[in-house]
Amino acid sequence: MINKLIAKIRKTNAPIVVGLDPMLNYVPGYIRQAAFAEFGETLEGAAEAIWQFNKGIVDAVCDLVPAVKPQIAMYEQFGIPGLTAFRRTVEYCKEKGLVVIGDIKRGDIGSTSEAYAVGHLGKVQVGSRFCRGFDEDFATVNPYLGSDGVRPFLKVCAEEKKGIFILVKTSNPSSGELQDRVVLGPEGGSGQETVYEMMGRQVAAWGAECMPEEGDYSYVGAVVGATYPEQGRVLRKIMPKAFILVPGYGAQGGKGADLLHFFNEDGLGAIVNSSRGIIAAYQQEQYARFGERGYAEASREAVLAMREDIASALAGRH
Amino acid sequence: MINKLIAKIRKTNAPIVVGLDPMLNYVPGYIRQAAFAEFGETLEGAAEAIWQFNKGIVDAVCDLVPAVKPQIAMYEQFGIPGLTAFRRTVEYCKEKGLVVIGDIKRGDIGSTSEAYAVGHLGKVQVGSRFCRGFDEDFATVNPYLGSDGVRPFLKVCAEEKKGIFILVKTSNPSSGELQDRVVLGPEGGSGQETVYEMMGRQVAAWGAECMPEEGDYSYVGAVVGATYPEQGRVLRKIMPKAFILVPGYGAQGGKGADLLHFFNEDGLGAIVNSSRGIIAAYQQEQYARFGERGYAEASREAVLAMREDIASALAGRH
Repeated sequence: MINKLIAKIRKTNAPIVVGLDPMLNYVPGYIRQAAFAEFGETLEGAAEAIWQFNKGIVDAVCDLVPAVKPQIAMYEQFGIPGLTAFRRTVEYCKEKGLVVIGDIKRGDIGSTSEAYAVGHLGKVQVGSRFCRGFDEDFATVNPYLGSDGVRPFLKVCAEEKKGIFILVKTSNPSSGELQDRVVLGPEGGSGQETVYEMMGRQVAAWGAECMPEEGDYSYVGAVVGATYPEQGRVLRKIMPKAFILVPGYGAQGGKGADLLHFFNEDGLGAIVNSSRGIIAAYQQEQYARFGERGYAEASREAVLAMREDIASALAGRH
Repeated sequence: MINKLIAKIRKTNAPIVVGLDPMLNYVPGYIRQAAFAEFGETLEGAAEAIWQFNKGIVDAVCDLVPAVKPQIAMYEQFGIPGLTAFRRTVEYCKEKGLVVIGDIKRGDIGSTSEAYAVGHLGKVQVGSRFCRGFDEDFATVNPYLGSDGVRPFLKVCAEEKKGIFILVKTSNPSSGELQDRVVLGPEGGSGQETVYEMMGRQVAAWGAECMPEEGDYSYVGAVVGATYPEQGRVLRKIMPKAFILVPGYGAQGGKGADLLHFFNEDGLGAIVNSSRGIIAAYQQEQYARFGERGYAEASREAVLAMREDIASALAGRH
């Protein structure tokens, strides 16, 4: 799946992932009203609204980008109907040929992480049959519980040729409270490093165990926020074979020039996420001319602008 | 809700939470077969089997314990039908008067953590109405992303008078890879502490902001594994007003005597989880006489034995 992602990035010339993180107030009024008319102001109504909204965006951008990243929290807040819309979105995007990164940030102790891994990336045994729960192509994983929480994901990735992105340095303002702290070497050993550097080394080590038969990049990638370009530079060197999923571009403040350090010399190694900046583009002044009926075309324009921003930043590197 | 939990612990004299973490191979064959006969060997069939299994256990133990802790991963592996069984279990346990701790270990950046917080503990706005997604009483929270990922949960806890347990020192073998590492004081300040001590201090600080109108314990608790009693002793002092949710008793190796340090002098301050040791008791030699048709009564016996184990450990303290 990492090789499929890379092939699609090359084909589209867009190391871009569209974050499908629909808030109800991003959804144009006419879509919300139609959904509420059918299902009422209920969880079902909300789920229908975000599904219709997503569908419009996916149809408008699926030829331009390699991947989408639905953030499961935005669906889970609407309970079972919301999660049904998540599953439907995953399925629809895969039908459209998109690589789907489930932004689930799961992580638990061994046996429990195994349940998350099979539920999102693999298959679960039911009697004599095997069934698939959510079936994304990639998932994001939280490493707070250490390697026995991560290993079940590695196992499923190897079996299914799927991938994970492990949280290393997240894009939010308070990520440094833990992630930037300096830790001493284990058991009094010498050498100091930050938590994110330590995690980066672990990602590199886990990744070395989980390489596809061909290609330079591992099934194990990392999440590093665009809002922290200096840390991105350091981490790029620590984990050269890890693809970096870069959130925080656009609405959170990251710019094209900030992204340079996240890429390798081969022009690969990073995929940049934008959520609100693309899916709610029509609410921004520069795309206001599309109006709410043109929300999907506004998203397409925003993708084209982002592609240009990243391409010119990368072109200026040499 | 923390006061309701404390009142129920006092009434039952059992600081015990039953972990409803059903694996399909814990479910007696006759329940599985009935479910598969009705729904096939499908996700729906699996979900029906674990729901029926849970119901039997809840009916058998609900007068003995204050709380249950369904582990959402065990449901999520069965996709939407599994999560529907989770929701049904939450609802049923609440009807039976049990406090429900959703073991969800969610945590994300600010706006996304807010979605998890409203989806699991609060209510989400849909048009002019407010709806509830999963509606547990407590949830577990992963702190890797720092305080702006935790604060949305604090807000919802204050509004709803519900609570959270933040992962501090987890029960699994590799939890020390990150959690035991020694960090330097922030910005080169003096003082060294482990990651779990640093998290314990943060739990105490967050908890001080989130106290009920009456009572000694905060809405903000912590998860500390029974498998690490020494760390429990240290953390008990760092965060005196935090209730500690203690996993790892029983099947994972923790014993009654290991639990002493987790309790305060008032005999409160901790609630001990057992999952497999209770819900799959009938599969153990000492309860084999119950047979699979008596799985629920075996669970009841296991709860009584655990209550006795903890009570005698606590009685021996003074």
